[in-house]
Amino acid sequence: MKQIKNFGSLTAHLKKQKPRKRVVAVWPSDKNTEEAISRVLHEGWADFILVGPSDILDTFQSLKHYADRVSVVGVSDCDEAAREAVKIVRDGGADVVMKGLINTDNLLRAVLNKETGLLPKGKVLTHLTAMQGGRYGKFLFFSDAAVIPSPTFEQRVAMVSYAVEICQAFGVERPRVALIHYSEKINPKFPVTTEYAEIKRLADAGVFGDAVIDGPMDVKTACDAESAKIKGIASPIEGQADALIFPDLEAANVFYKTMTLFCKADNAGILRGPIAPVVLPSRSDSAISKYYSLAVACLIS
Amino acid sequence: MKQIKNFGSLTAHLKKQKPRKRVVAVWPSDKNTEEAISRVLHEGWADFILVGPSDILDTFQSLKHYADRVSVVGVSDCDEAAREAVKIVRDGGADVVMKGLINTDNLLRAVLNKETGLLPKGKVLTHLTAMQGGRYGKFLFFSDAAVIPSPTFEQRVAMVSYAVEICQAFGVERPRVALIHYSEKINPKFPVTTEYAEIKRLADAGVFGDAVIDGPMDVKTACDAESAKIKGIASPIEGQADALIFPDLEAANVFYKTMTLFCKADNAGILRGPIAPVVLPSRSDSAISKYYSLAVACLIS
Repeated sequence: MKQIKNFGSLTAHLKKQKPRKRVVAVWPSDKNTEEAISRVLHEGWADFILVGPSDILDTFQSLKHYADRVSVVGVSDCDEAAREAVKIVRDGGADVVMKGLINTDNLLRAVLNKETGLLPKGKVLTHLTAMQGGRYGKFLFFSDAAVIPSPTFEQRVAMVSYAVEICQAFGVERPRVALIHYSEKINPKFPVTTEYAEIKRLADAGVFGDAVIDGPMDVKTACDAESAKIKGIASPIEGQADALIFPDLEAANVFYKTMTLFCKADNAGILRGPIAPVVLPSRSDSAISKYYSLAVACLIS
Repeated sequence: MKQIKNFGSLTAHLKKQKPRKRVVAVWPSDKNTEEAISRVLHEGWADFILVGPSDILDTFQSLKHYADRVSVVGVSDCDEAAREAVKIVRDGGADVVMKGLINTDNLLRAVLNKETGLLPKGKVLTHLTAMQGGRYGKFLFFSDAAVIPSPTFEQRVAMVSYAVEICQAFGVERPRVALIHYSEKINPKFPVTTEYAEIKRLADAGVFGDAVIDGPMDVKTACDAESAKIKGIASPIEGQADALIFPDLEAANVFYKTMTLFCKADNAGILRGPIAPVVLPSRSDSAISKYYSLAVACLIS
């Protein structure tokens, strides 16, 4: 498979994929969500189940043209919508869950329900972003800008696994995953650095398969060969990271907000861990970002 | 004073300032430092004392043209250079300290020495960056990308004070300082958010003078009015922050590295707290960044 390096190639790839993926949308009653769904329907790479008010198609005229590829499940409120969407996935009726106008916490309650939810026992739930921009010549994936405030060691290991997996789904043969910290020194005063050293040992033992895992290193060293050279750092990442694992949500969120605001980067965000990817846009995300998130979810589902 | 919004206006302002500032450079034996000093000498807004090998001018031919504005203090190693430079400042012989080819830790040892150093008792030492780029129409100042890993409440308060001070030195009449966190909620589970609430109370009590201090909020809400609007956040920052206070070094360093690498932002970094500003470039900083740092230090010294 040829490596998919940007959103244009991603959607071109999806258009050729058969059968079409099935997306269940939870209370999709905002303009941006409608616009994203409408664009996907027009391009023909996914079908939709809208779980919301039973008259939702009266509001969303643009979706009416695709009556054979859009079905509606009427419910009375967004919490019921979340439970119903999760049930549809469990019953094998959908491949991807998409968040509409519902609080993240309320959607997660349904997704994480131990009896009726979507997260297998022992699986780590984390957020993964695909970013394209800032003159970087390929996708840059990273975790976790939305769900885990301070990852435990086990959660960091899971993040690395998901990062390797998504890179492979995008056709990266030997994913390079950089473990981010402001310094390249391993220092017991900063436990994240010793946890990174342990993750490298797991990588050397083959736990993550054919992937290059290295760190601690800063964002510049991870993504720019010249900076690494000036600092005298010889890393197998070689300034060409495919994925970044951030030390915590504060740092990841700063990267996410800085890239989208100051570098006008495009991004797509999904939850990993559940049996189906969950598309979880943030409130200030645009329609195009929701559309991109659907594309990433449909590729890996 | 007209607000200085970019490095071009800053150096134009310095060229008109009298008398010229005096910079003491600690072991300035690398190409980038020479280039930065040479440019300042050419533009005529500072004089230099080079503390290093006594034959240093033989190596740095470009500085020889300015014999009347460059003096040399010969020492045998960089640690001695640091001690000597600090002494010169204490004796009133220089206004700014500049780091050359010496480890930050070694320079700081001399600066922080309780008997012979430059930090008054009770003063907080922190790092402050001036950033220009990413299509933001003015300087964006932030702390701390280099010195304090996890600020205490007292250190956060000092960072806010220094931020207000530097904004005022740049002619910002009523500085807007945003306290950064990934969410705008105050939540005792995340102590930084309750510390921010306390800082806002101090601001309301007038501790920081005529300034707008608000948070917690994320980088996008702080620097983009549109994002704040979509999120329904009404803040007096109005998406036009002059300065950002980051929750910790991890987050600040990600901002610094992301802006300089992906947004090609220009930056200048100095230490605040000592009786004279200390210019402290990072190893991967360019000559232009060192030159900009000198400009910021000479403005506020």
